[in-house]
Amino acid sequence: MDRASRREFIRVAAAAAAVSPAALSYAPQPSLRLPRDVRVAIIGFEGHYSEILEVASANPQVKLVAVAEQNPALSKRASANRLLSEATPYEDYRQMLDKEALDIVAVCGQNHTRARIVQECADRRLAIVAEKPLAMDLEELEATRRSIAANGVRLTILLPMRFSPVYQRMRAIVQNGEIGEVVCMAAQKSYKLGERPDWMKKRATFGGIIPYIGIHMVDLMLWTSGREFVEASAFQSNVGFPAYGEMENNAAVIFKLDNQGTATVRLDYLRPAKAPTHGDDRLRLAGTKGVVEAQEANGLWLITGQKPPEQIRDLPAAGFLFADFLESVYKGKRHLISLEEIFRVNEIVLKAREAAERHTIVRV
Amino acid sequence: MDRASRREFIRVAAAAAAVSPAALSYAPQPSLRLPRDVRVAIIGFEGHYSEILEVASANPQVKLVAVAEQNPALSKRASANRLLSEATPYEDYRQMLDKEALDIVAVCGQNHTRARIVQECADRRLAIVAEKPLAMDLEELEATRRSIAANGVRLTILLPMRFSPVYQRMRAIVQNGEIGEVVCMAAQKSYKLGERPDWMKKRATFGGIIPYIGIHMVDLMLWTSGREFVEASAFQSNVGFPAYGEMENNAAVIFKLDNQGTATVRLDYLRPAKAPTHGDDRLRLAGTKGVVEAQEANGLWLITGQKPPEQIRDLPAAGFLFADFLESVYKGKRHLISLEEIFRVNEIVLKAREAAERHTIVRV
Repeated sequence: MDRASRREFIRVAAAAAAVSPAALSYAPQPSLRLPRDVRVAIIGFEGHYSEILEVASANPQVKLVAVAEQNPALSKRASANRLLSEATPYEDYRQMLDKEALDIVAVCGQNHTRARIVQECADRRLAIVAEKPLAMDLEELEATRRSIAANGVRLTILLPMRFSPVYQRMRAIVQNGEIGEVVCMAAQKSYKLGERPDWMKKRATFGGIIPYIGIHMVDLMLWTSGREFVEASAFQSNVGFPAYGEMENNAAVIFKLDNQGTATVRLDYLRPAKAPTHGDDRLRLAGTKGVVEAQEANGLWLITGQKPPEQIRDLPAAGFLFADFLESVYKGKRHLISLEEIFRVNEIVLKAREAAERHTIVRV
Repeated sequence: MDRASRREFIRVAAAAAAVSPAALSYAPQPSLRLPRDVRVAIIGFEGHYSEILEVASANPQVKLVAVAEQNPALSKRASANRLLSEATPYEDYRQMLDKEALDIVAVCGQNHTRARIVQECADRRLAIVAEKPLAMDLEELEATRRSIAANGVRLTILLPMRFSPVYQRMRAIVQNGEIGEVVCMAAQKSYKLGERPDWMKKRATFGGIIPYIGIHMVDLMLWTSGREFVEASAFQSNVGFPAYGEMENNAAVIFKLDNQGTATVRLDYLRPAKAPTHGDDRLRLAGTKGVVEAQEANGLWLITGQKPPEQIRDLPAAGFLFADFLESVYKGKRHLISLEEIFRVNEIVLKAREAAERHTIVRV
């Protein structure tokens, strides 16, 4: 199970067992030795804020000083976590932003609130860690891009799969030329459906399966392959689960690459409850000289013209998105996800959703 | 390795090693006990005529009486096979059809010749086993459909994967309701490129990667899931192998299902030379109650809400397409591939190719 899946599993397991996330332990992490303490707030407990808590748990310099959440049930559950026990709770995030002296805000609420909150944080010159997607449509995305640029603030989004040893290694294999030029990519996200909050069941507040989970695989495909996407076509729907309203439980997306190669992405919320992990992530890159592939159940495999299939067990250490971001903000390190990449991947998934909704091939 | 892949492997291995197919042995088969001897001819050695030879090798009643092939190199290689040693060789298939008293003709030549030859065989009231695809475009397909109907002849096409134990079992699992309603399908065909004849390097004589290899997976998706396709979108190209001309080495296809579910198909000729099998076939069906999946390297797996992932090892015996066809023609058995299915799957792949070539979503 990679880290993103593990976190998702922890989140779902915690929800399913109705236990506090405080009962769960986090992966060991290096101390960051930041030049000073960092005051962090979390807005919204809908998203994967465990990314923040994991890093805070290993770094006492990361102070969780405030949290804002309108939903009392989510607030109550989060407040049981020792890392959040000192945080001042707010219902209104604007009040929190007005009152608290903050360095970084994690924007983890419902999808439809994100772009607006990110812009408000940018206006206050705060560094921002945002859930994905960053915006609900291209207009919001463009407004957010302008706001970030105008305010000159730092931004990252929760695409932690880039920090997974498997995908880091996959990218290195491509960069080393081991599979030649990438021609044909295939990715899968298959999740357990489980219970979902009401906001995920409406297009206006959720935004769709492609921006929400497709974004991980679009980002990984671009990042590992070094290629760009130029066109998209997509179908999506909810079949068999009317209680989930407008939340799609399946999608099929194809992309044309900048070298005229192709990519397919399949997304579903059909993973059976008895499956060993919450997600069944897969990514396969076929190039002119070889194929490299990661499957949740099988690990990372490489086949080239030079040698038979080989499982790649020599993997780099796992990275931590929020730790990497902190080091970029406070220690001048280059963050693994650039601003340009953040806006580009959001643009692509919104345009791919548009392809599905407008029922046409879209230039991305 | 399933049978289709094995045959493909044998074909490629034989070509690569420049050995005669006579040196290779065929799988054991049941005797058919036909009511009388059957006189069979093969037109063209470009296709997978080993399907015919396999059955003939176990059934002396199947007499290979004539062969027609214009390419002397292919004729010479085939004539080394003991099963073809008694067959009268022709260069001109029309001359063969005029002179020989035949029961069944296997139409295995170059793709662009197929529809015409099939129609000529139908006009002569011969039963026909055709390579795939059946036609190069929808007009040819419609003419072939009319010819088969008007002459009332029997027809099958070389889609032997239906007879594979894995896919038979997959279909049974769906029919038993074990995965509920199929919502999201994903299929892969990845082949070694190897040497290819010149006719495959031209669109006009090859017809494209989607009709040629995509047809296997489209057929299996329809047959195993029990669903229909209503729309298609596709991208395809040849990247990195200019010597192969217009032969695409990658394609990405999506389909919308009749229940609004989705399917993705990825096709490539990028499988590295050192891979253990010629093809890396995959098919995954995700339904409302479970997921069933076949992968070349892993076999058949089932996950449902009822029990953890389980490898399905209890598989039915392999069937044999040509044997099944013979029994349908001479013993009244119902052939596993209906006429309606044959024309439907050809129609779908030609329309999916049209989606790629016309760069638009196509109703299939």
